[in-house]
Amino acid sequence: MALAIAWLAGALYTPAASAEDGYDLWLRYRPVEGVRADAYRMRVSRLVAGDAMPTQAVTRAELLRGLGGLLGAAPPLSEAAADGAVVVGTPMSSPSIARLGLELGDLGRDGYLIRSVTLDGHAATVIAANEDIGALYGAFHFLRLLQTGQSIERLDVREAPRVKLRVLNHWDNLDGHVERGYAGASIWDWHKLPDWRAPRYADYARANASIGINGTVLNNVNADALVLTPMYLEKAAALADVFRPYGIRVYLSARFSAPIEIGGLETADPLDPQVQRWWRDKAEEIYRTIPDFGGFLVKANSEGQPGPQDYGRSHADGANLLADALAPHGGTVMWRAFVYSDEEPDDRAKQAYSEFVPLDGEFRDNVMVQVKNGAIDFQPREPFHPLFGAMPDTPLMMEFQITKEYLGFATHLVYLGPMWEEVLRADTHARGEGSTVAKVIDGSLHDHRLTGMAGVANIGSDRNWSGSHFDQANWYAYGRLAWDPELSSRSIAEQWVRMTFSGDDSFVATVVDMMMGSREAAVDYMTPLGLHHLMGSNHHYGPGPWLGGGPRTDWTSVYYHRATRAGIGFDRTASGSNAVAQYAPPVAREFGDLETVPEEFLLWFHHVPWDYRTQSGRPLWDELVHRYTRGVDYVRGMRETWRGLAGDVDPERHAQVAAFLAIQEKEAQRWRDASIAYFQGISGLPLPEGYAPPPHSLEYYESLEFPYAPGSGR
Amino acid sequence: MALAIAWLAGALYTPAASAEDGYDLWLRYRPVEGVRADAYRMRVSRLVAGDAMPTQAVTRAELLRGLGGLLGAAPPLSEAAADGAVVVGTPMSSPSIARLGLELGDLGRDGYLIRSVTLDGHAATVIAANEDIGALYGAFHFLRLLQTGQSIERLDVREAPRVKLRVLNHWDNLDGHVERGYAGASIWDWHKLPDWRAPRYADYARANASIGINGTVLNNVNADALVLTPMYLEKAAALADVFRPYGIRVYLSARFSAPIEIGGLETADPLDPQVQRWWRDKAEEIYRTIPDFGGFLVKANSEGQPGPQDYGRSHADGANLLADALAPHGGTVMWRAFVYSDEEPDDRAKQAYSEFVPLDGEFRDNVMVQVKNGAIDFQPREPFHPLFGAMPDTPLMMEFQITKEYLGFATHLVYLGPMWEEVLRADTHARGEGSTVAKVIDGSLHDHRLTGMAGVANIGSDRNWSGSHFDQANWYAYGRLAWDPELSSRSIAEQWVRMTFSGDDSFVATVVDMMMGSREAAVDYMTPLGLHHLMGSNHHYGPGPWLGGGPRTDWTSVYYHRATRAGIGFDRTASGSNAVAQYAPPVAREFGDLETVPEEFLLWFHHVPWDYRTQSGRPLWDELVHRYTRGVDYVRGMRETWRGLAGDVDPERHAQVAAFLAIQEKEAQRWRDASIAYFQGISGLPLPEGYAPPPHSLEYYESLEFPYAPGSGR
Repeated sequence: MALAIAWLAGALYTPAASAEDGYDLWLRYRPVEGVRADAYRMRVSRLVAGDAMPTQAVTRAELLRGLGGLLGAAPPLSEAAADGAVVVGTPMSSPSIARLGLELGDLGRDGYLIRSVTLDGHAATVIAANEDIGALYGAFHFLRLLQTGQSIERLDVREAPRVKLRVLNHWDNLDGHVERGYAGASIWDWHKLPDWRAPRYADYARANASIGINGTVLNNVNADALVLTPMYLEKAAALADVFRPYGIRVYLSARFSAPIEIGGLETADPLDPQVQRWWRDKAEEIYRTIPDFGGFLVKANSEGQPGPQDYGRSHADGANLLADALAPHGGTVMWRAFVYSDEEPDDRAKQAYSEFVPLDGEFRDNVMVQVKNGAIDFQPREPFHPLFGAMPDTPLMMEFQITKEYLGFATHLVYLGPMWEEVLRADTHARGEGSTVAKVIDGSLHDHRLTGMAGVANIGSDRNWSGSHFDQANWYAYGRLAWDPELSSRSIAEQWVRMTFSGDDSFVATVVDMMMGSREAAVDYMTPLGLHHLMGSNHHYGPGPWLGGGPRTDWTSVYYHRATRAGIGFDRTASGSNAVAQYAPPVAREFGDLETVPEEFLLWFHHVPWDYRTQSGRPLWDELVHRYTRGVDYVRGMRETWRGLAGDVDPERHAQVAAFLAIQEKEAQRWRDASIAYFQGISGLPLPEGYAPPPHSLEYYESLEFPYAPGSGR
Repeated sequence: MALAIAWLAGALYTPAASAEDGYDLWLRYRPVEGVRADAYRMRVSRLVAGDAMPTQAVTRAELLRGLGGLLGAAPPLSEAAADGAVVVGTPMSSPSIARLGLELGDLGRDGYLIRSVTLDGHAATVIAANEDIGALYGAFHFLRLLQTGQSIERLDVREAPRVKLRVLNHWDNLDGHVERGYAGASIWDWHKLPDWRAPRYADYARANASIGINGTVLNNVNADALVLTPMYLEKAAALADVFRPYGIRVYLSARFSAPIEIGGLETADPLDPQVQRWWRDKAEEIYRTIPDFGGFLVKANSEGQPGPQDYGRSHADGANLLADALAPHGGTVMWRAFVYSDEEPDDRAKQAYSEFVPLDGEFRDNVMVQVKNGAIDFQPREPFHPLFGAMPDTPLMMEFQITKEYLGFATHLVYLGPMWEEVLRADTHARGEGSTVAKVIDGSLHDHRLTGMAGVANIGSDRNWSGSHFDQANWYAYGRLAWDPELSSRSIAEQWVRMTFSGDDSFVATVVDMMMGSREAAVDYMTPLGLHHLMGSNHHYGPGPWLGGGPRTDWTSVYYHRATRAGIGFDRTASGSNAVAQYAPPVAREFGDLETVPEEFLLWFHHVPWDYRTQSGRPLWDELVHRYTRGVDYVRGMRETWRGLAGDVDPERHAQVAAFLAIQEKEAQRWRDASIAYFQGISGLPLPEGYAPPPHSLEYYESLEFPYAPGSGR
């Protein structure tokens, strides 16, 4: 009895250090149970792996750490093959692998194969690649097989990434504030760099390498020119040193006016020889400090940032200026297409296309144009950006936002995989049917060698990296999709759940189902039926459909929903802004016609009366109310589901997820109620049967303020 | 062989979770080794402790956690006494303790006794107190005995705090920035409060309770009135709920102009009846939300903060306004004496005294005046503040700065215990010899019941709480000195080292010696011989002895060192500002006379020629150079010492400390070189034999900029 009590009490003094706080991400390497473990041990009797080069050393360390955790003990290291040997390396680094004469030709620099082979008469597993970094990716793949409980007999895996540059964009300011960051402060401790290299930097690199990410932009696209000064280059170089063994290159956001701010020049005109020399010299200085520097990311002439148009030059002039400076060193320019002029366009959604399509073909070979998935700004749902497929002679990078600026910050459980999959599988029809966005991004549609995908990071100083445990899945899914844009978001979610929480099949099925519906739920309770840009101003937290007024109408909500007593929606057909015409004819026809437009884009492209009959048979107003309510119900359902999983997840992570789901339900309810209260005031229509009226007045919802909501721009 | 390699490799995959990252602070509870453990187990065969009340529950949980960690297994819980029983509680909560009839009378609310007793014929240990919170403090004391390897036989401990309010001041802004914070962002996640109560909040409370801290001011003294709005009071209430079982009360910094900013009044005049009503209503609202709210901390009419003087009223008028509002609820006002007017005084050091001494006796009973240890601002060394002893009719709180704003931020190893001990033991002579500052603070000198000590926290979101492992010692030392201002800083350091690193006697002696000299070293390389306020402007990082000019001279360096070709130092004697006259006559005589002034205060009180002969026999200039150099040498010595301890500390903490010591040496060297370069330019004197000249020109040192040094005011 007393012992029983003591045992219970024992739960109270588990040392904090071993708590499940999420720091390990999907690399937890907890022991595999039962017969499966024995089967694995048979196939992992020893490890043959070199450590002559840094990347080889981290590969070997990761395998020892991972296999040691998963199998209870690390396999002994050995030189010779034996039954159950795992042999890792390249023909250069491993004589055994060289002897096998595997065809690695088509795997490129990052690819690998994992194969069950007979080596010197022994049954062995080989993880082989052309380069050390490929072997590291292969090692993570092999570990993932064990983490997800798959068989490692008769393996024959061939993998190579479909996208060349797989890059994180950190919107981190030099003062530690992260714009649109909901996971604490920046993980870059600039003040203590370069002298103090926090262990977390290497864990960051490990996590990224495990999903194939090979580049990181350290600073905010709203850039501070100081990052290009010697003091900061030295700090960036220290990070590059830590990341290098993991195959991750450092990039910097470059402020276009840097030649004036830190160069002492009078101008930043891209055609000015002095300016050109300044950037050439700066590039040489950077490469002296960081020999494998990746290049520049640039936000120019957008939201008040300086750019070539300040001098009457084009985006191509600006991008080529930096491209010429980087070219001798092999660097790349990632030039963002997220632009809008200081004057208001007739439709902001049209502006990137209008500015960039005429420039197609004018960019240097080492320039990529980085395009957000949609034409507005990372909304819960947007149709694919019309630029995709419209610039055949320019390699276009995809820019996804991993951090949930418009999708509930850290506390809303919203798995973004389905949103990204939806965009990547969208058909641009640029070269006839099947011209998917994925094929634009991987270069296959227009035959580009230089390809890339960028993800705006959701990483911060919070212990669990992403602010919430489930937001780790979005980091993971981004990396996997950057490696292969045609993966299914469900298979990615399943993989992640098994590695992060549990391999129990029914648990996995339950959680994956919950995740897969979560994004549609957010669309429902925030912006159903193609509505968009209805959030609070500046911090973008919570509903603000009533926002109007200055400084410019295309920063308001009323500009986008255009609700009147007569109807609601943004007419982007020929009778309106005709943004639809920016798509290829078949797409333009589909989106432009009320008969064929997918209902989820209805109010994105059309202005319709409140009594417009939707596919459900309900009038539009009723359908709106129905969807707002459905979104809240889904969140309530997730709470119940999660409550039922209490026994299957460690108490610490279960408690945080449960608390966050409670916050999500409260906020989803507020989105629903505030939106209905506002739109009802305009439509003047009664709520349909059985739908609860908002508990507060519209004035109440309008009065709510959130002065220090995180992640605001500065 | 292979196994040996595997074993070595094993070191590489220790799961990150069990890393020694400093999160556990001094509450690590690692297993006690050998015979001592057996002796402890004899005396800890079971635990008799209730959990009927929250504080009882956390006390029991801490004992189970601590004893479980230290002894390998938690003692079973039991109702009945037995040999080796540890019985914890109050006469109310524990019949056994009631039966013992212990004299607890003089222990008050927070005191406790720990005694080896015979209980029902069994040899037991009793931890008894009048209140549950006293028992919690006693439990932590008992655990500390085991953590520091002391005998627990024949125990007879009686402890009660000498100071009533032992409070942390967090200079945390509502946006998460910590003014003068060097350990990351604020640990308060205001956005997710009140719904999400991070586990870290309870760990924060545990750590504070373990050293007797019983109050915390959540927000910056440069206060935002919003913290007094319902939205934030709810958030503060959630923290208060978490802290309550640990005996920690929540306080808030109140902005004096809040009645205007959030109350919609025209004025904040303390004599205005509307203003008085507003504060009364606000206090009632607060206590409805936080029944045990501690009170207000106020920075008024200082550095641009609003205050009563804006309306021609005195600090007493302002303090009493808030005191009257809090009085019905038992709240306290902590009114800061750190003031200086917008006009420049003849000597800033004199101002607090000039403004507050005339108000002695005019404050309400629930007002304390909070005085910094010195008259300027937390410099590496200051003479004790002349206000101590000079306001017999007003309870004065000590304000220490735990965060190292002027002592090297997080990376310099500077143990502040000796600095605080120096101040507390200083003799004010207010009531004749022996009138120490400690006796002013603990109320014994002028017979005050209301006593307090405040420490400006060095706590942030960094995993190790304080930014560096050794800065945890300053948090610890502050708490212990607040409990008993007459403890020796060396004994505190020894305790801390044993709990934090190792119980090995030679290791402890080495590290404690290193710590004990570290503050003097910082004084040497930054501001020797009584120099002060010579740091970089705004961020206060690095040397800036050359700083002059606007906006006001008493924010410059030249104002304080007054160096000319003829000499250096601030004449605060009768021939100068006569600040020395603010001390009691014996002290004034000692400090005012070149013959008797302690050399460490020489240039604080006197302006002397460069060839003034110091006690070493060296001319002042040579002595200055000598001390600057000695400081750097000490840091170099700490690096060597620490290198030698590599085997005795876990690699993770050893590596961080080593990296920080390298930074400290670099920065100490810069302080030394920049200061010598600057003062040599003024003195025009050659460097003494054998002292290296600065490697760079003065221009170089003046040109260094640190735009985003952490912790700046905003």
